[in-house]
Amino acid sequence: MYSEKGKYTVEVCFSPLSWPLFEKENAVIILTDIFRATTSICAAFQNKVKSIIPVAEILESIAYKEKGYIVSGERDGKKLDCAEFGNSPFNFMEPRLQGKTVVMNTTNGTQAMKMVQKGNNLVGIGAFLNLDAICNWAMQQKRPVIVFCAGWKNRFSLEDTLFAGAAVNYILKNGKGDFHTMCDSAIASVDIWHQARINPRAYIEKAAHRHRLKKMGLDDILDYSMQLNINQCIPVLVDEEIVDMG
Amino acid sequence: MYSEKGKYTVEVCFSPLSWPLFEKENAVIILTDIFRATTSICAAFQNKVKSIIPVAEILESIAYKEKGYIVSGERDGKKLDCAEFGNSPFNFMEPRLQGKTVVMNTTNGTQAMKMVQKGNNLVGIGAFLNLDAICNWAMQQKRPVIVFCAGWKNRFSLEDTLFAGAAVNYILKNGKGDFHTMCDSAIASVDIWHQARINPRAYIEKAAHRHRLKKMGLDDILDYSMQLNINQCIPVLVDEEIVDMG
Repeated sequence: MYSEKGKYTVEVCFSPLSWPLFEKENAVIILTDIFRATTSICAAFQNKVKSIIPVAEILESIAYKEKGYIVSGERDGKKLDCAEFGNSPFNFMEPRLQGKTVVMNTTNGTQAMKMVQKGNNLVGIGAFLNLDAICNWAMQQKRPVIVFCAGWKNRFSLEDTLFAGAAVNYILKNGKGDFHTMCDSAIASVDIWHQARINPRAYIEKAAHRHRLKKMGLDDILDYSMQLNINQCIPVLVDEEIVDMG
Repeated sequence: MYSEKGKYTVEVCFSPLSWPLFEKENAVIILTDIFRATTSICAAFQNKVKSIIPVAEILESIAYKEKGYIVSGERDGKKLDCAEFGNSPFNFMEPRLQGKTVVMNTTNGTQAMKMVQKGNNLVGIGAFLNLDAICNWAMQQKRPVIVFCAGWKNRFSLEDTLFAGAAVNYILKNGKGDFHTMCDSAIASVDIWHQARINPRAYIEKAAHRHRLKKMGLDDILDYSMQLNINQCIPVLVDEEIVDMG
């Protein structure tokens, strides 16, 4: 779908609540949930996990466990009873997971994946860790791009928006003139990225979710999560599974 | 309502769609719709209009007209058939309106006013024109503050967000330590304001609604709307009417 200027649009959806305003069925969606679902997915593929099955409901996780799958999952930072481990990226780095499929259940991220997997949409998983790789993949699809922020319980989230700004900035700069934006949330995201880019890790200290993670003792992942381009994985949702196309 | 730190919270709601996440019933709401409802309301009070009755439905406007009221109003930039004039601030500067009540109907702004007027909420009307005055009034109320962006058809709007950032920045700086924020949308708004503050008029050139206004031939109001603190009006919603408490 070309815009009237003959270029593909790039938009940013700040939270699942706003998705009906952006919804398309032939777009590339870069889905992000920096703390921590999509960062953990990138960590998993760097560790050569075979695939990840995202699930939104706890009953689904239990059903997969009964079938013998490795199950991870949390709600509001607390490990699910049925899960072997929670959603920290460090949990996905264990050598025993290599070549295996892991079922993942999160507070915001996996629900968001289900929401955007509609029609002919292509859904890629983005984090700071694989920023350039996922953006290059998105640009190759020759479609409108929507960066979808999973947010926190439908709220705007600073860390996801910062990633969105980095992604839009990359696509507009490297898209060979094929992309443009007229989307205020994309423009605002890029401006926030410009303000933070010298030191994203320091910038994110003020994010609300950074404080939530600290309270829950889950903020050991900040330094890791805010690193740019430390891996080249391209996690893409194919039917029910996320696989690495990188 | 004090937060856990003994300070009043300051939050920014980016669009009517997100209001359920912020909704309070004992807060101060600073409602903004820069292009053009709240800018026009400030222009009206500078012109010594007696009061403004905001209405959301076209049938209401017609009913008021039949009662002899002066009726203004638009939908998507087009003057309503029942209205004497549209929503440009310049229309509210006519000397004949002095001392009169004007009924106003807009695409986004008047609907938003109805939405936030709940419980014991105090609703003030903010624009760049009366930035300091409306913020000073809000701070005097000793309550949590929410800056509510009317947006454009439930979308995030750059110009309303820029105002929100200016307002939050002012309140945090001048609130004598009584206010704090842990709201990511407030933090992002302030960062956008910091990027734009040297020349807000130039910054807003990239906003989507700026282009919409241009297409409709309604962008003659940009220079006027982006001026800071040219009047001291404090428009506050009292029952069914907006009156100037300044």
